[in-house]
Amino acid sequence: MRAARYYDRKDIRIEDIEAPVAGAGEVLIDVAWCGICGTDLHEYLDGPIFVPPAGHPHPISGESAPVTLGHEMSGTVAALGEGVTDLEVGQHVVVEPYIIHEEYYGKENYQLSPDMNFIGLGGRGGGLAEQIAVDRHWVHPISEKVGLDEAALIEPLSVAHHAVSRSEAAAGDVAIIGGAGPIGVLTAAVLKALDITVIVSELSELRRQKALETGVADYAFDPRDVDVAEEVRKLTDGKGADVGFEATSVDVVLNMLFDAVRPGGVIVNESIWGHRPEADLATLVLKELDLRGTIGYSFDHAATIKLVEEGKIDLKPFITGKIGLDGLIDEGFDTLINRNETAVKILVSPSGKGL
Amino acid sequence: MRAARYYDRKDIRIEDIEAPVAGAGEVLIDVAWCGICGTDLHEYLDGPIFVPPAGHPHPISGESAPVTLGHEMSGTVAALGEGVTDLEVGQHVVVEPYIIHEEYYGKENYQLSPDMNFIGLGGRGGGLAEQIAVDRHWVHPISEKVGLDEAALIEPLSVAHHAVSRSEAAAGDVAIIGGAGPIGVLTAAVLKALDITVIVSELSELRRQKALETGVADYAFDPRDVDVAEEVRKLTDGKGADVGFEATSVDVVLNMLFDAVRPGGVIVNESIWGHRPEADLATLVLKELDLRGTIGYSFDHAATIKLVEEGKIDLKPFITGKIGLDGLIDEGFDTLINRNETAVKILVSPSGKGL
Ligand SMILES: NC(=O)c1ccc[n+]([C@@H]2O[C@H](COP(=O)([O-])OP(=O)(O)OC[C@H]3O[C@@H](n4cnc5c(N)ncnc54)[C@H](O)[C@@H]3O)[C@@H](O)[C@H]2O)c1
Ligand SMILES: NC(=O)c1ccc[n+]([C@@H]2O[C@H](COP(=O)([O-])OP(=O)(O)OC[C@H]3O[C@@H](n4cnc5c(N)ncnc54)[C@H](O)[C@@H]3O)[C@@H](O)[C@H]2O)c1
Repeated sequence: MRAARYYDRKDIRIEDIEAPVAGAGEVLIDVAWCGICGTDLHEYLDGPIFVPPAGHPHPISGESAPVTLGHEMSGTVAALGEGVTDLEVGQHVVVEPYIIHEEYYGKENYQLSPDMNFIGLGGRGGGLAEQIAVDRHWVHPISEKVGLDEAALIEPLSVAHHAVSRSEAAAGDVAIIGGAGPIGVLTAAVLKALDITVIVSELSELRRQKALETGVADYAFDPRDVDVAEEVRKLTDGKGADVGFEATSVDVVLNMLFDAVRPGGVIVNESIWGHRPEADLATLVLKELDLRGTIGYSFDHAATIKLVEEGKIDLKPFITGKIGLDGLIDEGFDTLINRNETAVKILVSPSGKGL
Repeated sequence: MRAARYYDRKDIRIEDIEAPVAGAGEVLIDVAWCGICGTDLHEYLDGPIFVPPAGHPHPISGESAPVTLGHEMSGTVAALGEGVTDLEVGQHVVVEPYIIHEEYYGKENYQLSPDMNFIGLGGRGGGLAEQIAVDRHWVHPISEKVGLDEAALIEPLSVAHHAVSRSEAAAGDVAIIGGAGPIGVLTAAVLKALDITVIVSELSELRRQKALETGVADYAFDPRDVDVAEEVRKLTDGKGADVGFEATSVDVVLNMLFDAVRPGGVIVNESIWGHRPEADLATLVLKELDLRGTIGYSFDHAATIKLVEEGKIDLKPFITGKIGLDGLIDEGFDTLINRNETAVKILVSPSGKGL
């Protein structure tokens, strides 16, 4: 089968490799769609980060580069391994792509367990291949009412859902999000489904438009035109937002949030930092803010799938491109690296059948 | 009466001013002792910060420099203003030194209300004077079993108590504190009273010794000798501390805490930052840490006074000097600015009667 394999920084190859089989307790999946994530771009440009470099096998998967990429995947069940009796061949599924020591499966905060990594980065195959065999534990069925293309966005939507849970935001609150990339807009979508007012700060005109048109944001500001924190105060009787979300990894956006969130409020840091930002902690202290990290998801998939199945979140508008495996670098990565303001989520059909 | 008055940076004068009287709803207090706080030193060296500069009166007190300094005070009731019937002349009291709009008195998070400032910084007299008249609301009676010198430490102990509440630490937890100055050791004292294991990182030999001798710390490390985060892991089966406290305002200490606290743990930022630290937020995200600001106190005085009255915290060992008003700069500020490793808390007797 064909697969996108990460060898090293700037070295991703489309290769023919042996197709996996469903071992005991595993599910073999025909991948329908796999999204390209910001983390994949980081690995390509600055990695290996999550990918275990050649010669340094991951303690759980035992694998190192080259590994198959892709962790935002949907597909149909192709075969069931020994002992898997609660799924059927042909059923639509998505993958929660964790590599975790089995003793932490189902335990509180399993996403924080030692040596945690992701399928499609740390080994165990990936979604940028025609097939993948996944431990039943990480396979979530999804209704056929949801398109398989939309289903590929369940993974980043779960990231957003977990971030929103971390914020403890509730109906009637006001949220300010720094950045309306895939993570920012999907965070907006989850907040909106909870009846929270959403204000977005974003440089890209297209991304601001998308956030407004889809209704996931109530207000979208260009930080080059206005003082965003000041606008947030105007919209909240001078009080400030209840919660903030950092989804840019830009210092000035982080510090805007310290300014825009009300005393006693919460800021969730979603972005992965490649440098140490100069953080305005004097304001954190004087306003008793609460800055919380969030990584991946933790029992979020069930709720996320339900939100989409029930039509409370429409993921279709965030899919801005569909490509084949051969276009991965030239059409996919290149667009997201050099013209990311023209796209939100680009999906890959590894078999080409979806195109 | 004699009072220490802040005019401007490096300009504090001991002057004779008119003694206050107890207005309606106020309590006139003969100040017994007033501690010198790190914030007073900041005002002296780099201020005015909290002090409203001349010509810029504070919106609540209506005052600007010169103002009387001192906010860590104990004393005896000298007179009661009209309508104050629940205190007696001669009774021992401490002051919770807030300047807050009256509509927020007794409200949740009153410490975060708009224009908040402190008595002894933002106007309304100060503890570095023979007498002060204070709104009954901010006067807390304290048992005569507690020495008035110790009682002057109730204010910084309340800062520590509030910081510990913010951490949600509970019996059996392990805490790592960066810095064993007055705020760090008093935080240790509150944690110890709650049966929490305390590890301290501190440069000063004397302060490490003090923390160990008084029993408020179980372990005290010199960060020049060992990797403190590594030592914390060794003491916690590789897991890391449950909570961390930043009480130095030094970047490297903040980042040590991100390393030393376990995944899902809490770090409380007590220190006031004069610069924006380069914070290791990548670790905050990957470990889902929670960085919380804390300012002053919020309904903490009652609990703090009880801890000291019941003998659960002994404040005496942290008093390392007693001086008169004339020695404020030469003996007090100078020691704390240039040789702070030789002292913890220095108390001032404004009338000289305590010496
Ligand atoms: N915590 C997790 O589990 C998790 C999971 C996935 C991704 N992430 C991280 O989340 C972050 C966001 O991911 P993404 O895919 O949406 O990234 P992205 O790069 O597509 O989006 C970032 C957005 O921020 C905007 N931006 C940049 N500077 C700005 C400024 N000064 N003001 C306003 N907007 C500004 C950009 O225009 C862009 O639209 C990344 O750091 C990614 O690594 C975290
Ligand atoms: N949040 C609040 O309400 C509140 C109230 C009072 C004080 N504060 C702040 O708390 C902080 C601490 O106050 P303090 O009076 O204890 O200050 P301090 O200066 O006396 O104590 C700081 C301690 O940190 C130690 N230190 C410095 N660098 C270190 C390093 N690299 N590793 C380990 N230890 C190191 C110093 O030796 C010193 O003992 C200050 O920033 C102060 O302004 C906050």
